[in-house]
Amino acid sequence: MPKLTKKRSKKSGLAPGAMVHIGEQKIEQTKITIIDYDESQFQVKTPDSCEECFPYKDKPSVSWINIDGIHQPEVIEKIGAAFGLHPLLLEDIMNTDQRPKMEDYDSYLFIVLKMLTINPKDKSVASEQVSLVLGKNFVISFQEDVGDVFDAVRDRIKNNKGRIRKSGADYLAYSLIDAIVDNYFVVLESIGDRVESLEDELVRDPTENTMREIHKLKREMLFLRKSVWPLREVIGSLEKSDSELVKEHTEIYLRDIYDHTIHVIDSIETFRDVLSSMIEIYLSSLSHKMNQVMKTLTIIATIFMPLTFLAGIYGMNFNHIPFADRHWGFYSIWGLSLIIALTMLVYFRVRKWV
Amino acid sequence: MPKLTKKRSKKSGLAPGAMVHIGEQKIEQTKITIIDYDESQFQVKTPDSCEECFPYKDKPSVSWINIDGIHQPEVIEKIGAAFGLHPLLLEDIMNTDQRPKMEDYDSYLFIVLKMLTINPKDKSVASEQVSLVLGKNFVISFQEDVGDVFDAVRDRIKNNKGRIRKSGADYLAYSLIDAIVDNYFVVLESIGDRVESLEDELVRDPTENTMREIHKLKREMLFLRKSVWPLREVIGSLEKSDSELVKEHTEIYLRDIYDHTIHVIDSIETFRDVLSSMIEIYLSSLSHKMNQVMKTLTIIATIFMPLTFLAGIYGMNFNHIPFADRHWGFYSIWGLSLIIALTMLVYFRVRKWV
Amino acid sequence: MPKLTKKRSKKSGLAPGAMVHIGEQKIEQTKITIIDYDESQFQVKTPDSCEECFPYKDKPSVSWINIDGIHQPEVIEKIGAAFGLHPLLLEDIMNTDQRPKMEDYDSYLFIVLKMLTINPKDKSVASEQVSLVLGKNFVISFQEDVGDVFDAVRDRIKNNKGRIRKSGADYLAYSLIDAIVDNYFVVLESIGDRVESLEDELVRDPTENTMREIHKLKREMLFLRKSVWPLREVIGSLEKSDSELVKEHTEIYLRDIYDHTIHVIDSIETFRDVLSSMIEIYLSSLSHKMNQVMKTLTIIATIFMPLTFLAGIYGMNFNHIPFADRHWGFYSIWGLSLIIALTMLVYFRVRKWV
Amino acid sequence: MPKLTKKRSKKSGLAPGAMVHIGEQKIEQTKITIIDYDESQFQVKTPDSCEECFPYKDKPSVSWINIDGIHQPEVIEKIGAAFGLHPLLLEDIMNTDQRPKMEDYDSYLFIVLKMLTINPKDKSVASEQVSLVLGKNFVISFQEDVGDVFDAVRDRIKNNKGRIRKSGADYLAYSLIDAIVDNYFVVLESIGDRVESLEDELVRDPTENTMREIHKLKREMLFLRKSVWPLREVIGSLEKSDSELVKEHTEIYLRDIYDHTIHVIDSIETFRDVLSSMIEIYLSSLSHKMNQVMKTLTIIATIFMPLTFLAGIYGMNFNHIPFADRHWGFYSIWGLSLIIALTMLVYFRVRKWV
Amino acid sequence: MPKLTKKRSKKSGLAPGAMVHIGEQKIEQTKITIIDYDESQFQVKTPDSCEECFPYKDKPSVSWINIDGIHQPEVIEKIGAAFGLHPLLLEDIMNTDQRPKMEDYDSYLFIVLKMLTINPKDKSVASEQVSLVLGKNFVISFQEDVGDVFDAVRDRIKNNKGRIRKSGADYLAYSLIDAIVDNYFVVLESIGDRVESLEDELVRDPTENTMREIHKLKREMLFLRKSVWPLREVIGSLEKSDSELVKEHTEIYLRDIYDHTIHVIDSIETFRDVLSSMIEIYLSSLSHKMNQVMKTLTIIATIFMPLTFLAGIYGMNFNHIPFADRHWGFYSIWGLSLIIALTMLVYFRVRKWV
Repeated sequence: MPKLTKKRSKKSGLAPGAMVHIGEQKIEQTKITIIDYDESQFQVKTPDSCEECFPYKDKPSVSWINIDGIHQPEVIEKIGAAFGLHPLLLEDIMNTDQRPKMEDYDSYLFIVLKMLTINPKDKSVASEQVSLVLGKNFVISFQEDVGDVFDAVRDRIKNNKGRIRKSGADYLAYSLIDAIVDNYFVVLESIGDRVESLEDELVRDPTENTMREIHKLKREMLFLRKSVWPLREVIGSLEKSDSELVKEHTEIYLRDIYDHTIHVIDSIETFRDVLSSMIEIYLSSLSHKMNQVMKTLTIIATIFMPLTFLAGIYGMNFNHIPFADRHWGFYSIWGLSLIIALTMLVYFRVRKWV
Repeated sequence: MPKLTKKRSKKSGLAPGAMVHIGEQKIEQTKITIIDYDESQFQVKTPDSCEECFPYKDKPSVSWINIDGIHQPEVIEKIGAAFGLHPLLLEDIMNTDQRPKMEDYDSYLFIVLKMLTINPKDKSVASEQVSLVLGKNFVISFQEDVGDVFDAVRDRIKNNKGRIRKSGADYLAYSLIDAIVDNYFVVLESIGDRVESLEDELVRDPTENTMREIHKLKREMLFLRKSVWPLREVIGSLEKSDSELVKEHTEIYLRDIYDHTIHVIDSIETFRDVLSSMIEIYLSSLSHKMNQVMKTLTIIATIFMPLTFLAGIYGMNFNHIPFADRHWGFYSIWGLSLIIALTMLVYFRVRKWV
Repeated sequence: MPKLTKKRSKKSGLAPGAMVHIGEQKIEQTKITIIDYDESQFQVKTPDSCEECFPYKDKPSVSWINIDGIHQPEVIEKIGAAFGLHPLLLEDIMNTDQRPKMEDYDSYLFIVLKMLTINPKDKSVASEQVSLVLGKNFVISFQEDVGDVFDAVRDRIKNNKGRIRKSGADYLAYSLIDAIVDNYFVVLESIGDRVESLEDELVRDPTENTMREIHKLKREMLFLRKSVWPLREVIGSLEKSDSELVKEHTEIYLRDIYDHTIHVIDSIETFRDVLSSMIEIYLSSLSHKMNQVMKTLTIIATIFMPLTFLAGIYGMNFNHIPFADRHWGFYSIWGLSLIIALTMLVYFRVRKWV
Repeated sequence: MPKLTKKRSKKSGLAPGAMVHIGEQKIEQTKITIIDYDESQFQVKTPDSCEECFPYKDKPSVSWINIDGIHQPEVIEKIGAAFGLHPLLLEDIMNTDQRPKMEDYDSYLFIVLKMLTINPKDKSVASEQVSLVLGKNFVISFQEDVGDVFDAVRDRIKNNKGRIRKSGADYLAYSLIDAIVDNYFVVLESIGDRVESLEDELVRDPTENTMREIHKLKREMLFLRKSVWPLREVIGSLEKSDSELVKEHTEIYLRDIYDHTIHVIDSIETFRDVLSSMIEIYLSSLSHKMNQVMKTLTIIATIFMPLTFLAGIYGMNFNHIPFADRHWGFYSIWGLSLIIALTMLVYFRVRKWV
Repeated sequence: MPKLTKKRSKKSGLAPGAMVHIGEQKIEQTKITIIDYDESQFQVKTPDSCEECFPYKDKPSVSWINIDGIHQPEVIEKIGAAFGLHPLLLEDIMNTDQRPKMEDYDSYLFIVLKMLTINPKDKSVASEQVSLVLGKNFVISFQEDVGDVFDAVRDRIKNNKGRIRKSGADYLAYSLIDAIVDNYFVVLESIGDRVESLEDELVRDPTENTMREIHKLKREMLFLRKSVWPLREVIGSLEKSDSELVKEHTEIYLRDIYDHTIHVIDSIETFRDVLSSMIEIYLSSLSHKMNQVMKTLTIIATIFMPLTFLAGIYGMNFNHIPFADRHWGFYSIWGLSLIIALTMLVYFRVRKWV
């Protein structure tokens, strides 16, 4: 299950803008990749030191600087200084316990998103924070770890598919956000499958574990919700932003992501409703099972208690017991017992207990 | 039960505007029907190739081009190119996992709706996506499958009933939306009937299956809600839109559909409340039944346990048992048992258990 | 219980403005009553044909044309034509499955309301749709059936009580709406009484029927809510409307009804909360009763099971049973049983089970 | 428990402005008190007839006319006529079933509030309607009964404490509202104490009565809510009102009451949440108790049923019973029984039932 | 558990602006600390009398006057008079039962906040009210007790870390608020840990105490909510305030706190949802346990009741009992009993009860 809080407390008391990494360190060494392109050319670089990125700030071609690993304050600080980024922004990049948000710093936009992935082993949802800085001719993306959902974007740049090579940095930023949001649908499908298989289990044979799985899924939905709800506002304010960095032409694409985000939110709310309803079914099925058990017990007791009493009566040590000396006495009690038992059973059948 | 998600993941990673059909393929070959009319004339055509539609773009008469089957990207693309439709719009047409929405592309409006139908066999609700493109003199409608709720509209055009032949393309689009929304009332009636019959079952004799049916209905309501809620906004923005494509005269009709949509939403919320209340009744009736079972058991045990003890006492092998040698001994125990049993019954009657 | 839906489906597929009566026909023949008055004179007419109403359209005195029975399209159509009413409005009049609403058609206002009455027999709430058309000098009211809550208004007109004869058509319309809303308080009182008597029953002796009554009341509250919630908006937009038909002077009276509507809504929500809380009490009382039953059973079993075992032990057929030949043997077992039983009872008293 | 509705139905059908007293009559004779003051002088009068108030309308000093008892229409009407009050306002004064509200009649403001008091005997909350009319130099307050929370205000006027004698009628009105709202905190404290004592009871020893007390408190919270929620709007619109009757200088004091009102609302919502949570605890504690009872029963049955069977076996009347003729036979069964019982107990201890 | 209300009633009836301390007195003597600094110098003073603070009002350097202990009206009043603070503001400082709020008094801003701390012993959340007055060159902070979360701020001032020494009083006020909000994350982490450990307990072995702990946490969340929700508005209005006291440059830092506040609120809501879901699990696990107990009972009864009956039958005192004289009679009953018992067990295994 996702942890409820991240150890943000270690930052408590530090000055605003203090560079402290909050979250799990997932990679040893920060890794930088630069993709630089325009309509006519395309090149990829993996520089060893962050200083090699600096010239890309003012190149007229579009540059995508991707940084995997955000735990090294010195790297983040150098890049921040070179690209003129605000200290609070750098602090946010290193703090993976952020709500998705969009901030307009006039000469660049800062966007924080959550990239979700499904752990293939236990189908749990993992989250990675992605921070984007959109400048005039560049996009800097900060990720916690190598491996992401951007391979398709890289492929489109490389092979000059679609309009990405003909468009500016804002379209690149849009493409990255779109890739992240598109992947939410993959996550939703995986969760949807788990919900449906739990529904089946609920109808077939619910166990105590089913309830725990429902609780786990509910908690994952809460987690998803926290990642996706603010996104709506982020994309909405990007779309409506009057920043010159987002060209009018890209706005129609942002509207498209906005619709997708609403769609994801709708689905999350639907899943939550379905899970709530499943808990009610589980509880009612427990009650139902209990009823079955109690009926069995009651039937057994109602049949055998009178019979045992009857046998007990004829086991009393009175000198005179009627018919005790008759040969058919024993058999008649057997017969009587059978009649009583059958009568009871008929009675229960009538009350639909059997 | 409706699936929680559609396999949208196969689109993940593709460029925006990629033409991929999401949803179930319901028809083999795309089928095109053109209805062209003005006040004086009317004609129907079913062309073999989509190229035959193209001239209708600029004809002064109103043209309704209906396309059944949206899984063939090449057809959609050709039509899109001929009518100057945006790639994102074409992508949306092929993706049946859309929220209802309205988009204004200046020279045309794009509207996505859900057409709901009741499966006559199991009374479940099926959904089909209908996309409308409203241009100056034409309406293009995209459906997943042949068969729809528009026959009455076709009939009104053919027989020149009402004002449809005298009005423009916007009135045609209105008529199609109206037909879809009107059909929601049919769907609601069917669901209302199922809810009421479940209510009867709940009062008469609730079983575990009743609970499952309630859950099923709740899930269908969630599904309906996702289809209808956004519609309100769609119609509202159509009505308030300042597009020249919607004439002032048609707005009063859109207000009418708007009212209907609110009405449908009201009914859905009411149904949801009724279903929630039914679950409470079901649970309370389970508890009540359990109480009945337990009372039965307790009555039986309370009567026969003391009696069995009594018989057991007189079955002890002491040499001296009082009255053991009297002739009426055995009968007196019988009598005593009867008295004890009756006393108990009177006691339970007083406590209203019997 | 009120039906969840009305058979609106028979209208599905018809052209907008189609005159189809939706709802139950409650009267055989449409009945028209005209009350015409100004400060100096007053007259009542019950014409046989609707043509007699037409001259009242342009009379300078205030005319109230009341129409009982809305199932005859030809009557509604004739009146509509004479008074210049929009076809969609006429359609709405005949469709009793409307949400309350207010529509401004410039030269007249159209208002749809629900008149609620209590069925004196079973205290259930019945609803009748009232449509008002407010013109310059006239008010036309359409009702489903004869009999209404307007007698007091008629009386005030006849006897020139209050300011009604001195005021215009807008004050008449206000008076009619006021009479309807005032009657909601009567309905609420009746429901309040039923809720309180159920609360008493719940404390005294809840049965399965109590739960069903609560469910019934909850459904009636849903029904009421659907009738009253939209009213708030209706009155609000009437009050804020800049239509010349509503004189400034009448607005203060509309504000008064607005307050009443809010009050009714508040009460409905309070009732709903009380009913929800009552269900919780019912369920807890079921649990409590079950506990009582189970305690009884456990006490009986705990006392008699050991005793029966004891008696059984001394009923074993061993040749040597200690004290079997003593005279006091039988009595000592009786005594021991008594001691065991009393000890148990003391134990249960300590645990507060008895 | 507070009644859910007041008998407002007796007003149904009357003309707007009809003077009918709705509510309980709490006092026999209307009682009038006049306090007139300015910075230099102060006087109190208790006139016998209401005519004596009339001159105070235009006196330059501040006059507070307090009227206890609102059931005599003639008194209210006379005062209304003398001070030029609107008929609808007079109607509202006599109707104690009002929502708190503020109405601006240009030359005076009309404010309706609920004064809450704790019944010292059963700690229940009682409500009294207070209507204030704020004119240029006067405040008229209408109460249902003698006795109120204004004694501190009277004291401050008399002893010239604070700024009240230096300020105008608006400050007097503020002081009265402040006294009423301040008293809400007293009411909340009393309810808070009851909630906390119920919480204790819940942890120590919940009974069926606990549940009923929770329900009672929930209903009282609903009642409080209806009184306090609208107040927020009342004070808010007073503060923001552009009426000349409220001087700028008083607005900061109104903001202060506004904060208090929000605080009261916050507390009410918190109490409601706490009460809801308490119901869950109550239900879970019922379930828990049931578990305990059932465990006891099961332990008893599981121990004695096998033993009784064993004894029964050796009580069978077969001629040949093994070891029946041994001296130690009887004791060995006793021993075996003991071993079985102890084994069972160990088993239950392991499963943590004992 | 935090008390639901503070004894605010002792203030009821007093004039507005009356100086009454509401809350617990936590310190004996008011303690004043003055920190005065600008870019070049820094000094700390702990004056004995409050008069020593007065000169700092108009010094050009930034002064932070911290007052621990707010129960002495005379001290508060003197400071208020010297710094020209409004009486209502002074009243609010002494009343620790305030909602967080921000008030703009033109020449100074007044901010009320709640400082939360975790009691290290029982991990409960304690709250202390902090009032800030932000003037042109000074910040006055009022606290209930010595000890706070501001040590890091003092350290940054002393050691000239970050930009605090270069910035004005508004940045100091921001730093104090930031320290308080930052500490909320520490509180959240502590609560998050408790929630997670309860979740573990719930899965492993829930007891009645688990439920009580959940209730306690729920109440603490309500308490937290009341402290944090209004903060959002406070920071929001500070950020958007057009007061000259907050420089444009500080606004970006306020936006940062605003984001943190939203984050805290999100977490609180998530915790509440998780706790609600935990109650459902607890109830279902109670039901589940009950089922287990009942199954055990039913199995025992179903096996031994028929056997006891069988033994009882052969214990009857008829002269003729079949096979009574056979040597294998007794053993055959034993065998039969074993067969019956095993059959039952197989049956229960099939129904998955064992």
